[in-house]
Amino acid sequence: MAITLYWGSGSPFSWRVLLALEHKRLPYESQQLHFDKQEHQSPQMLKMNPRGRVPVLKDNDYVVFESVAILYYLDQKYPQVPIFGLTPEESGVIMRVICEFQAYAEPYVQKIVEAVFSDQVSDDIEELTDAMHIVGREARTIEGRLSKEQWIVGENYTALDMVIFPWIQLLRRAMNRPSAAALSARFLPMERNYPALARWVSRIEALPGYMRTYPPHWRDVQANFTTEEGKTT
Amino acid sequence: MAITLYWGSGSPFSWRVLLALEHKRLPYESQQLHFDKQEHQSPQMLKMNPRGRVPVLKDNDYVVFESVAILYYLDQKYPQVPIFGLTPEESGVIMRVICEFQAYAEPYVQKIVEAVFSDQVSDDIEELTDAMHIVGREARTIEGRLSKEQWIVGENYTALDMVIFPWIQLLRRAMNRPSAAALSARFLPMERNYPALARWVSRIEALPGYMRTYPPHWRDVQANFTTEEGKTT
Repeated sequence: MAITLYWGSGSPFSWRVLLALEHKRLPYESQQLHFDKQEHQSPQMLKMNPRGRVPVLKDNDYVVFESVAILYYLDQKYPQVPIFGLTPEESGVIMRVICEFQAYAEPYVQKIVEAVFSDQVSDDIEELTDAMHIVGREARTIEGRLSKEQWIVGENYTALDMVIFPWIQLLRRAMNRPSAAALSARFLPMERNYPALARWVSRIEALPGYMRTYPPHWRDVQANFTTEEGKTT
Repeated sequence: MAITLYWGSGSPFSWRVLLALEHKRLPYESQQLHFDKQEHQSPQMLKMNPRGRVPVLKDNDYVVFESVAILYYLDQKYPQVPIFGLTPEESGVIMRVICEFQAYAEPYVQKIVEAVFSDQVSDDIEELTDAMHIVGREARTIEGRLSKEQWIVGENYTALDMVIFPWIQLLRRAMNRPSAAALSARFLPMERNYPALARWVSRIEALPGYMRTYPPHWRDVQANFTTEEGKTT
């Protein structure tokens, strides 16, 4: 088989690539690495990505990492189901909103999710409350887009949806923890506070192959919130 | 004229787009905005980019912002002189190193440059020293690439060179300030510490149209280090 994906359960960056591979219906060998066994830091993995981060995609002899670069490579190499837009103008908007998400939302979502999963909410409650305000503002912009369209940009499910979706799932999971109660009031229930975003989540959850992208450790031990989340790119 | 670029002097993000427009030899109307007069926050600018950041590119009625998205749009729309690689594999590496730079180097370079230009080096000297170590490590990786090739990835000047170059120039300018002496020892002179990087800088400086991309306020008042730097995307 040509494509092998090395990934970790609960890594939002890995999840993006799984979503893309499923959407493009590309056959791939799935190599799940276990963070708790440091499998992403093995000599074999460090040889492919010296930073020791996942996801890493191998396509025959070619190796690529950094999730957005993997999505981009896949779209260039296997353009049959395009995920970066159909026109230069649409491509520009998709890339623009990816850049905006990475610059203005992701660092804050990541901070919140990591604090919740490592039980450090009360240590940084002021900073996390500020982060939650920023995330809320960015989420409202996306809510506005999704209240008019099915997907965040344009008429199709794109790389942009794949970039943002895993973080929304991680954030929702984090906000459902009792220790996040002080932060979650304006976010949960998502169906009331962000109805269009909630419908978009359901829409992605209903896509073919979705369950193959779902973090196995979320499925296996529903009640056991491990600290696998947020450890990787 | 079809393309208008709204940009600010000393904004590394703006500089990237100026480099791309010159390299692609695209005619454009140059609209320099003055940060000190808050021109990037005018109603007209906020209408195009609600975040009030530059660069913003307008191509007839189409508006795009976020520097990497602008480079990407330009390459999709005007592919004659490609800047995102010639094959899917090369495109993947270019995008990967852009992502790596943004995730692992840019926040630290930005922190250092902003501290120097706002005369706050001594306030945060420990944090800045750590940042300088990280930047040094990333610069050595690029030095390694440039000791073998003329450009950072592949045989051509690409979007990746355009993304990184303005930050190297800003860093060099910052390190030359007397107040940065405690940080600059391992960076300056660049010709000795990073000889391949220094040659690459000279190579870009020798490109046609380069002087049209050079920050006007660096040229006009050589001795006057203003605080224009680092204020924008």
